[in-house]
Amino acid sequence: MKNLLEISEKIFEKDKRFISRAISIVESDENNSIELLKLIHKKTGKAYRIGITGPPGAGKSTLTNQLTKHLIKQNKSVGIIAVDPTSPFTGGALLGDRVRMNEIGTNPNVFIRSMATRGSLGGLSKKTIDASDVLDAAGFDYIIFETVGVGQSELDIVNTADTTIVVLVPESGDSIQAMKAGLMEIADFFVLNKSDRPGSDSALMALRTILMLKDHNVDDWLPNIIKAVASENIGINEILSEIEKHKNYLIEKNLLQKKRANQLKIRIKEIVESFLRKDFWHEENIIELNKYLSNFNERIYSPYDIAEKLIHNFKTKLKE
Amino acid sequence: MKNLLEISEKIFEKDKRFISRAISIVESDENNSIELLKLIHKKTGKAYRIGITGPPGAGKSTLTNQLTKHLIKQNKSVGIIAVDPTSPFTGGALLGDRVRMNEIGTNPNVFIRSMATRGSLGGLSKKTIDASDVLDAAGFDYIIFETVGVGQSELDIVNTADTTIVVLVPESGDSIQAMKAGLMEIADFFVLNKSDRPGSDSALMALRTILMLKDHNVDDWLPNIIKAVASENIGINEILSEIEKHKNYLIEKNLLQKKRANQLKIRIKEIVESFLRKDFWHEENIIELNKYLSNFNERIYSPYDIAEKLIHNFKTKLKE
Repeated sequence: MKNLLEISEKIFEKDKRFISRAISIVESDENNSIELLKLIHKKTGKAYRIGITGPPGAGKSTLTNQLTKHLIKQNKSVGIIAVDPTSPFTGGALLGDRVRMNEIGTNPNVFIRSMATRGSLGGLSKKTIDASDVLDAAGFDYIIFETVGVGQSELDIVNTADTTIVVLVPESGDSIQAMKAGLMEIADFFVLNKSDRPGSDSALMALRTILMLKDHNVDDWLPNIIKAVASENIGINEILSEIEKHKNYLIEKNLLQKKRANQLKIRIKEIVESFLRKDFWHEENIIELNKYLSNFNERIYSPYDIAEKLIHNFKTKLKE
Repeated sequence: MKNLLEISEKIFEKDKRFISRAISIVESDENNSIELLKLIHKKTGKAYRIGITGPPGAGKSTLTNQLTKHLIKQNKSVGIIAVDPTSPFTGGALLGDRVRMNEIGTNPNVFIRSMATRGSLGGLSKKTIDASDVLDAAGFDYIIFETVGVGQSELDIVNTADTTIVVLVPESGDSIQAMKAGLMEIADFFVLNKSDRPGSDSALMALRTILMLKDHNVDDWLPNIIKAVASENIGINEILSEIEKHKNYLIEKNLLQKKRANQLKIRIKEIVESFLRKDFWHEENIIELNKYLSNFNERIYSPYDIAEKLIHNFKTKLKE
C-alpha cells in the first residue's frame, strides 16, 4: 500500500482511484483508517451534506441521480454514499444499482460509493461518516447520503446530514409507516415522489395532517412537502431550491454551526466509547468474564456484580 | 419507598403490586434498579422466555393472549412484557391494548406490563431484560416478550428469548419485508396468522421459498411454519407444541445453556459499557470535550485526536 500521506495528497487532488481506496481503508482497516482521517482532517468541513431516506421503492436512487445531474450543470461536484442493505441470506445487494454508474458515475465531478450493511448494522453509521470525511477532504461541494429508512442505524446516518429529505410515495399507510419508523422527526422536508400516481392528493393530505400534529414554535422550520416525479425530472428544481432555502435558514439562524457541533459531539462520544471498548476487552478480561460465565449457574454473582468486578480489575491494572 | 430487601421478598411471593413497582424502578431509577436486580438474582434462571415479533397488525397481542389462556389452563403462570412503540409526535401509545387486561390481566397467574420506547430506542432492550429478571424471580413459568419487529432494538429484545416466534399475515410482500428487517434470521418458527384470508396459500409458499434459500446443516433446527387464526383460537395448540418441541431440541442438543450463556455474555458486555460510559463522561471530561468543540473550526484536532486526548486524560486521572 502507498503510504497514507501520499494517499491523503491524492485525495486532496480529487483522484477518484485514491478516494475509492481511502474508503476501502475506512471500511476494513481500522488502524490505518484512523491515521488517514487525522491526516485529511484539516481539509474537511466545507461540503454540504444531504441525507435522502424513505421506504424501499420510494425512488431514492432515481431522485439522487436527478439531483446530481442538476448540480453538475451548476458546476458543482457531488459525492454519493449509498447505504445498501444486504440480504441476510445471500449476502447480495437487494438494491444494487449499476445503471446509475453509467449515467452519472463517469462524470469527473461525481463520485459514487455503495456501503453495505452486511448483517451487522452496528458501526455502519460510523464508517459512513468517516467515508464522508474523505469526500469532504476531496473537495466535493455536496455529499449525498442515500439510505433506506428502516432502522436506527439508518436514522443515525441521515442524522449526520445538514439537510434531510424523506421520500415517500402515494401508497396507503406509507406516511403512517414513516411516522412509526421515526422518519417524521428527522425530515427537513418531504418529497412525495411518483406523485402522478392515483391517490397522490389524499397521500398529500394525510401527510399534512400528520405534520400538523407536531408541536412547533413560531420561529421553527416547518417541513414542506414537494411533489415530484423523479423518473420524469419533475419537481427536481423545486427540491434543489428547498435545499437551498433550508441551508439559508440554518445559516441565518446560526443553526448550521450548532447542528454540526452537536453531530460532532455525538461522533466523538462514539469514538471514545469504541476506543474504551477495545481497551477493555483485551484477553485478560475476556478470560475473567468466561470464568464468571462458567460458574454462572450457581447464581452467586448477578450480571451487574460481574460487570462491577471486571471494571474494578480494569482500573486496578491501569493503576499498576 | 419500602426498602429494596422488602420489595425483593414480595417479588418472591409473586405479589403483583410489588412486581409492578419493581419494574418501575427498573425503568426509571438506575441505582436502586441495580441493587434490586442483585438481590433477586439468586431466584432467576427458571423461566422459559418466548419472543413474539412481526410487523404491525400481524396479530401479536391476540396470539399472546390466546397462548396465555392455554398456558393458564395447564396450570402455568405467564409474565408478559409488551414493548410498545410510542408515537414520536403525541407520546401516546399507538398499540395500546386495554382489552387484554380485562381478559387475562386479572388472573393471579398472569402479569402484563407494557414498556414504551418513548422516542429513544437505546437502552430499551437492557430495561426489558432487567424487567424479565423480575418476572423470572417472581417464579413465572413463562415470560413472553411481545414486540413489533421493526428496528435493531426490537431485534435485540427477542434475541434474549429462548424461543422466538415471528408472526406474519398473508399480505403481499410481508415475507420480503420481514426478510429485510432481519426477522428471518431470528425466527425459531413462523406463525402465518389470519390464515383464513385469501392469499394464505401463496404467502405460505413464498415464505417456504425464502426459507429454503437459507444455508443449513443436517442437524440444524429448521423453522417450521404454522398456520393460525389467533382471533378464533385456531392453531394455538400447534404453536404451543412447537414451542415445546423447540425447547426439547435445545435441551437435547445442549443448546439451551449455550444460547443463554451467549445472551448473558452480551448482556454483561453491555452493562460494562454503560458503566464505563458513566464513569467516563463525568463533568471534567465534558468540559474538556466542550473546549475542543469550541475550537474545532480551526481544524487542528480531528475527532479521533480529541477522543484519544480525552482517554489519555481519563487514564491519567485514574492513576493519580
